Amino acid sequence: MREHIVAVREDSRAAFHNNAAYCVGTGRMGLALHQEYQDQLRAVQALCGFRHIRGHGLFCGDMSVCQPYKDAEGVEREAYCFTYLDRVMDSYRAAGLRPFLELGFMPDQLASGDQTIFYWRGNVTPPRDEAKWTNLVRATLLHLKERYGEDEVSAWPCEVWNEPNLPGFWQNADKAAYLRLYEITAAAVKSALPKMPVGGPAICGGEGSQDWIRDFLSFCEEKALPVDFVSRHAYMGLTPERRGRYLYHGMRTVDDLLAEMRESRDIIDSFPRYRGLPMHITEFNTSYNPFCPIHDTALNAATVANLLARLGDVAASYSYWTFGDVFEEMGVPSTPFHGGFGLMANGLIPKPTLWTFHFFNNLSGECVHRDDNLVLMRRGDGEWEGVAWNLCGQGRDDALEIALRLPGKGPLALLTRTVDDDHGNPLAHWLRMGQPASLNAEQLAFLRQSAQPLCASRGVEEQDGALVARLTLARNAVTHFRIAPCEAHPDCGYDPGMYL
Amino acid sequence: MREHIVAVREDSRAAFHNNAAYCVGTGRMGLALHQEYQDQLRAVQALCGFRHIRGHGLFCGDMSVCQPYKDAEGVEREAYCFTYLDRVMDSYRAAGLRPFLELGFMPDQLASGDQTIFYWRGNVTPPRDEAKWTNLVRATLLHLKERYGEDEVSAWPCEVWNEPNLPGFWQNADKAAYLRLYEITAAAVKSALPKMPVGGPAICGGEGSQDWIRDFLSFCEEKALPVDFVSRHAYMGLTPERRGRYLYHGMRTVDDLLAEMRESRDIIDSFPRYRGLPMHITEFNTSYNPFCPIHDTALNAATVANLLARLGDVAASYSYWTFGDVFEEMGVPSTPFHGGFGLMANGLIPKPTLWTFHFFNNLSGECVHRDDNLVLMRRGDGEWEGVAWNLCGQGRDDALEIALRLPGKGPLALLTRTVDDDHGNPLAHWLRMGQPASLNAEQLAFLRQSAQPLCASRGVEEQDGALVARLTLARNAVTHFRIAPCEAHPDCGYDPGMYL
Amino acid sequence: MREHIVAVREDSRAAFHNNAAYCVGTGRMGLALHQEYQDQLRAVQALCGFRHIRGHGLFCGDMSVCQPYKDAEGVEREAYCFTYLDRVMDSYRAAGLRPFLELGFMPDQLASGDQTIFYWRGNVTPPRDEAKWTNLVRATLLHLKERYGEDEVSAWPCEVWNEPNLPGFWQNADKAAYLRLYEITAAAVKSALPKMPVGGPAICGGEGSQDWIRDFLSFCEEKALPVDFVSRHAYMGLTPERRGRYLYHGMRTVDDLLAEMRESRDIIDSFPRYRGLPMHITEFNTSYNPFCPIHDTALNAATVANLLARLGDVAASYSYWTFGDVFEEMGVPSTPFHGGFGLMANGLIPKPTLWTFHFFNNLSGECVHRDDNLVLMRRGDGEWEGVAWNLCGQGRDDALEIALRLPGKGPLALLTRTVDDDHGNPLAHWLRMGQPASLNAEQLAFLRQSAQPLCASRGVEEQDGALVARLTLARNAVTHFRIAPCEAHPDCGYDPGMYL
Amino acid sequence: MREHIVAVREDSRAAFHNNAAYCVGTGRMGLALHQEYQDQLRAVQALCGFRHIRGHGLFCGDMSVCQPYKDAEGVEREAYCFTYLDRVMDSYRAAGLRPFLELGFMPDQLASGDQTIFYWRGNVTPPRDEAKWTNLVRATLLHLKERYGEDEVSAWPCEVWNEPNLPGFWQNADKAAYLRLYEITAAAVKSALPKMPVGGPAICGGEGSQDWIRDFLSFCEEKALPVDFVSRHAYMGLTPERRGRYLYHGMRTVDDLLAEMRESRDIIDSFPRYRGLPMHITEFNTSYNPFCPIHDTALNAATVANLLARLGDVAASYSYWTFGDVFEEMGVPSTPFHGGFGLMANGLIPKPTLWTFHFFNNLSGECVHRDDNLVLMRRGDGEWEGVAWNLCGQGRDDALEIALRLPGKGPLALLTRTVDDDHGNPLAHWLRMGQPASLNAEQLAFLRQSAQPLCASRGVEEQDGALVARLTLARNAVTHFRIAPCEAHPDCGYDPGMYL
Repeated sequence: MREHIVAVREDSRAAFHNNAAYCVGTGRMGLALHQEYQDQLRAVQALCGFRHIRGHGLFCGDMSVCQPYKDAEGVEREAYCFTYLDRVMDSYRAAGLRPFLELGFMPDQLASGDQTIFYWRGNVTPPRDEAKWTNLVRATLLHLKERYGEDEVSAWPCEVWNEPNLPGFWQNADKAAYLRLYEITAAAVKSALPKMPVGGPAICGGEGSQDWIRDFLSFCEEKALPVDFVSRHAYMGLTPERRGRYLYHGMRTVDDLLAEMRESRDIIDSFPRYRGLPMHITEFNTSYNPFCPIHDTALNAATVANLLARLGDVAASYSYWTFGDVFEEMGVPSTPFHGGFGLMANGLIPKPTLWTFHFFNNLSGECVHRDDNLVLMRRGDGEWEGVAWNLCGQGRDDALEIALRLPGKGPLALLTRTVDDDHGNPLAHWLRMGQPASLNAEQLAFLRQSAQPLCASRGVEEQDGALVARLTLARNAVTHFRIAPCEAHPDCGYDPGMYL
Repeated sequence: MREHIVAVREDSRAAFHNNAAYCVGTGRMGLALHQEYQDQLRAVQALCGFRHIRGHGLFCGDMSVCQPYKDAEGVEREAYCFTYLDRVMDSYRAAGLRPFLELGFMPDQLASGDQTIFYWRGNVTPPRDEAKWTNLVRATLLHLKERYGEDEVSAWPCEVWNEPNLPGFWQNADKAAYLRLYEITAAAVKSALPKMPVGGPAICGGEGSQDWIRDFLSFCEEKALPVDFVSRHAYMGLTPERRGRYLYHGMRTVDDLLAEMRESRDIIDSFPRYRGLPMHITEFNTSYNPFCPIHDTALNAATVANLLARLGDVAASYSYWTFGDVFEEMGVPSTPFHGGFGLMANGLIPKPTLWTFHFFNNLSGECVHRDDNLVLMRRGDGEWEGVAWNLCGQGRDDALEIALRLPGKGPLALLTRTVDDDHGNPLAHWLRMGQPASLNAEQLAFLRQSAQPLCASRGVEEQDGALVARLTLARNAVTHFRIAPCEAHPDCGYDPGMYL
Repeated sequence: MREHIVAVREDSRAAFHNNAAYCVGTGRMGLALHQEYQDQLRAVQALCGFRHIRGHGLFCGDMSVCQPYKDAEGVEREAYCFTYLDRVMDSYRAAGLRPFLELGFMPDQLASGDQTIFYWRGNVTPPRDEAKWTNLVRATLLHLKERYGEDEVSAWPCEVWNEPNLPGFWQNADKAAYLRLYEITAAAVKSALPKMPVGGPAICGGEGSQDWIRDFLSFCEEKALPVDFVSRHAYMGLTPERRGRYLYHGMRTVDDLLAEMRESRDIIDSFPRYRGLPMHITEFNTSYNPFCPIHDTALNAATVANLLARLGDVAASYSYWTFGDVFEEMGVPSTPFHGGFGLMANGLIPKPTLWTFHFFNNLSGECVHRDDNLVLMRRGDGEWEGVAWNLCGQGRDDALEIALRLPGKGPLALLTRTVDDDHGNPLAHWLRMGQPASLNAEQLAFLRQSAQPLCASRGVEEQDGALVARLTLARNAVTHFRIAPCEAHPDCGYDPGMYL
Repeated sequence: MREHIVAVREDSRAAFHNNAAYCVGTGRMGLALHQEYQDQLRAVQALCGFRHIRGHGLFCGDMSVCQPYKDAEGVEREAYCFTYLDRVMDSYRAAGLRPFLELGFMPDQLASGDQTIFYWRGNVTPPRDEAKWTNLVRATLLHLKERYGEDEVSAWPCEVWNEPNLPGFWQNADKAAYLRLYEITAAAVKSALPKMPVGGPAICGGEGSQDWIRDFLSFCEEKALPVDFVSRHAYMGLTPERRGRYLYHGMRTVDDLLAEMRESRDIIDSFPRYRGLPMHITEFNTSYNPFCPIHDTALNAATVANLLARLGDVAASYSYWTFGDVFEEMGVPSTPFHGGFGLMANGLIPKPTLWTFHFFNNLSGECVHRDDNLVLMRRGDGEWEGVAWNLCGQGRDDALEIALRLPGKGPLALLTRTVDDDHGNPLAHWLRMGQPASLNAEQLAFLRQSAQPLCASRGVEEQDGALVARLTLARNAVTHFRIAPCEAHPDCGYDPGMYL
């Protein structure tokens, strides 16, 4: 058992930019029409309260926004259908969410080629006719403005395309073509909504990715284009191995990932014009594949805890990809657990990482200590709150004991909620059940119940004049703790002691 | 650690009359108008699926059934108001429940005296005018028949009064007066609904109580009165001590309680005419006081498990008093935990005993073994299910390991859900919080989450040619277990092993 | 058919202080624990969005706030129970409501006498021990402050007692005793929450009532007591006649009522110190009796429309007594329609007056015209909105046509929603059904459906260069209308004309 | 005003096979994943209580049932994914529905060609490999059997393909290929579920369609294939004209349609082996196009009323195509009203035809009279119920008065609910609003409210010793009426007369 002692003084303070609740990712927008998607979204929002949501596919065929038709004379006319867009946006707002818009992919009707990505065939080629594309963008934004009001919609960030530095996502990863797309699209956005923040280049990492940021900003600077933020992605997966439908790979360290993000941040700041411009990590996760088993595990929860403690050091926001498992990029999953990105498995079963977000997104108070195992907040009136985690790579199995030495007076009680390999980890039970593809009611009820964190409480000891709260974390545990005064004033003599 | 080995053979069978779901008790009927009451009832029903519900106060003033008025000429006229009765009955039916009617107490307008019981003042005196009483009974039953249909209402058992052998519940505990009440009331019931089961004497235990049963049946036999069941109550509390508002006492053994019930059963069977007549225990619990702390504890859950395993040996049914903590007999409780009878604390917080009922009420299959720690059912197709418990009186603290040796073939998995002193026991956390009277949202959420049972799973070992499932029960644990085949057919290669 | 022509110019403006949504009345607070009460409240709030709620009985026995007990030594101790108060306040807040507190009646434990009012026996005598009363008030307010926050609770107005000028509500209508009660209570309020508005004397009308206001203010002025508002009631019922349980009477005119209110307003303004002090009409309705049939009728809806158009001329607010029919002052009603105060009948059946409030509470824009049949608002962008009514006393039966001549350009469409004797008037159908006391599912569904207003639409004519919108109101009709631009841009040629 | 007098005697009886609730149609199965679809379905079921549901696309790509994959060795393996199928079936069962399965279309992975139908591209070519197709069918049915139980699934009828007599739906409308498909598919069905009813040929009408039925049965007879029912479709649309996206056409008469159905029925009965075999009309409607404005009108409601009164004369069941407007065959609709098939418009706005089904599906009692304007049922105890309609073709505008002369004693009350051009017809208001594509909250609320039927009541007259109930039906009205005893027993004197 490793031990970790944290001594807090009255004047302790620590930097901690906690923006975990800013945004969350989602499968393509058309899936937001699904009831299971909405059920998962409501469940996630009840626990995590995200403020924005970002996904692909606003202009994909299943959203049917672009809907030219032939009039009575047989002339083709541009027309737009906002039936589904309204439905999705209404549902987001009902869930307390604003979109972080991503403009893409190309409607088949406007595309210059037929290259597509994913099972659901998003067209990734430039527009055949730039005017028709910008008309589409403008018409869509003007419609949103009319429906939701200019002030509201102007608070929705708008990103141009997704990962154009990958040839799968943008034909040939053609940088010049992307910059042109950004130029005309950003102009269209601002012509519709002058105060809507617009940005790019929404790249993923890998070779040459930092150059994309540099070139993007140079281009914008040179052409004096509007650019209100820079966006990029952050994944930890190393070279993968595929077995059957699934993909397996090791993970980079959190330090390594942070260094990459820091480099992007520095590039932005190297432009005098753009110093301090917000950098949004519009996607992050461990693996970048929706069939990688890590996403279902407690290891993932602990890794994400470490990330959430640190990503605010380098980015304005960081959006977990994705909130739920209604997701089809590589096809429809056959089983409730399948390594999907989601914080919940299909069937409304929480995964461990859901709780990491629940714990971070609801933190309040002022940070007094932060390290690689712990974030500690002071809430005033003798109350403390925090998250602790014990990230153990493959093969390691060390429990961790954290002793928090706190100033002030007792008595205090410590309340903890914990997920680890044995608690709040429905995957473990599903594996023991024999990996059933279709869950019966009994199995589903068990898995949902097993997905709750373990709740515990104990007194805070007084020791050498200090108050000492002790947390014990098993391998890959993530623990939320709250410490609060607990002097009892028994109501008229209630004392169950003789029955305990 | 005590060890308990249970060897099951292919042809093992055990008697087990499991009727735990037949009926549950409730505070006075007027409280069924409350939203918190209905919320608790829905929550309990979702987990326990009781089939009948029985409570006091059908004719108390707050139900306003008896509503004579003066007409335009100033003449008093008998009239009845079914506004609230309909509302309550509709709500029961919506919750999947049928009433087990208890006719009482006496409406103030019909009472011969002014003796009342409880904070809410139920009048416990005989009717001033027998005809007005029987008119009231008849009118009420005829109204129910019209509203819900004769077949439906004829399936509701109907009990005359409550605990007339206590002077608090029936003026002077006047046996002759009760028998007369039964006579006229049973006749009124049958005149309205010939097939409605009617019974009594609804006594509580204690000195002379068995005589009440004997005298009741002698009287009915002699007068050839309708009597379709005999009813009585069963509590375990010994002589109490009061401190402040609360009451503390030791408990009889389960054996002792069973012996008392057996004696009643034997008395019934001693009447040739009534041999085999159903005996309903229309109330049972550990303590009979709604401010006795035992009800909130894991000890209560384990005690009730033992009772549920055995009460079917002596009674047709046994109704836990009560499902929820919206209950006012001794006054409105000031704190969420206060020793109330309920399976849920106010604020919709499950208590440990809720899970005992959840586990028993949903058992299926055929019983193959039953003892003082275990009920084991075979469900067919290699599936097994059961409940185990480890009832430890005050002061004792022995863990118990149960080894189930099962016939058949593996692989099997064992899934368990457990409440004990440390799990599914929100009282423990509330005490550590300092017994807050008004819970804030954070406290309430924690207590509800902490009230879920601990879920665990493991493989069933093959040992000496047998399958051995092992259960470990801490002090006062109640565990539901399910054993089922678990051969995995991994979907297209899903294998999270490297991340576990 | 009477005709009424209203010509609106571009610069038309009319005074209209619309505060209909400020507050609504409710039966005693303990009834807020009922599910039917909450269901009705949610339904009313969804349509009317009231902001405050005021009712009697905060300290009545069924709320159980005052709960002294004997400790282990047998000494009586003051203690308070906020279980039900929290439940009620939580439910109000969930419904978007803040309480308008009324401090009363006297807990039996603190009362100096045993005079009570109503079926539910509110004690109306002064406190036996002033300190115990002020302790109760202070403890209750401090508890609310701790639970909901000081800023929040300081926005709840607080009224001392109810109708002390009636001997039924305050023993002997003893003015000096009331003034003393006000003195000590107001001090207790301010000591707990210095910014909470406190006021009185909460009188009803009738002989001598204006003197009460004058004497109250003189007393407060002399003693320099805190007084943040003056409150009084406004009812229209003339001398009643009782037949059976019900009460029948004619109604004063709206003018007459307004004059009485104006007099109170003038009295307040006659005190230099209190000039302009808010006057809240904390109860108003047609009849003051909960078994007067007028409340269920369309006549009531039209009367209230007239009142809502005018009460803002004389009062800061005016609170309709009451939102729902879960109400027990004169006993529990036996039938869904029984002349209760509520905007909804039991069974969630809207009454016509509900729509009057729905129409007024949701009005937006700027008032351009107001008279005894009409309020007209301009919403900008060529949109208009308003409420029209045709109040016809007993015996009269004149339809009314209103022609609105509006400035601006067409095409415009007029959308109307109307309740009158034949529409949105479930009472009419219930009478034809034969006044069933218990509604079966079919009857209930019919009555609810029949309670919806009649929706209609038509084009606005162009006539002599003006736009003319025509409203036709049958006897006792209340019509909400909206006028909006309606130029059609048929989607891809949709034209159902051949099927219409 | 036309007049229609119906004289009913005590012994009147009329044939009426009312099976309107048996089945309803739906857009392709993948759309059942949508929340709006489920919301509409729940709303329709609450009013109509259909028992089965039938739609296309069980095996289309978006359901992802057919999901072959390459294993680690790169070998392609047949595999099936039931994630979405389970979700849809679970949702149907939660809505009280059983599927009427339609096996089709061809999964792309199994298709022999690439011809597709509809915006959503259902492949309509025969299987490339018959064994893979029958494996798919068998695996799917066996999965359903395992999940829902053999008895349950054996009660689901199963139809082979859809409209193979149209070349759009089945490549070349190749009859021999269809018969072969039926042969192998029916065998696969019976091998999985011997008691599941299987049938075909699911043809639409038109030239040669009756031959398809004859040839189908001859083929089955000759080969001794299982065939448990014959299915076909029934539409009324004549040759259409397209304007923009929409399609307009006149309608056949109901008589004409009935004659066509009768001919099919006679063909079946001409086979001794199949005499009396159930004929299911698995689709019917006025127009067969989802962009034909008639579907939104009151004319449609009246036409369907006439059909529902008569289709039971010739068919075992008749399934309206479709329950809701979440439907994409010709593309996603841009506006709430667009001539979709649904009983509800998008946004949960009831269309008039919804009420026709609500009225017919809930009829109870025994039919005593049926003609082209009326169905009249006797419910016992002096209660009567029925539906009346006044179908007026284009251009005609005759009101209709129906006088029902009934036996028995009064007083009786007549309660009616009516939709016609002016009531329960939101289309009319939407047109006046200017056909807005995106409805704001105010517009949506108005349209929903306007979509409720007009409720009215009146007394039944006594005339010449008979009771006469009078119904007045405007053009295209559909009226549900209930006649019931209404003798009033006023509760304690309630009499609102002076306020009416």
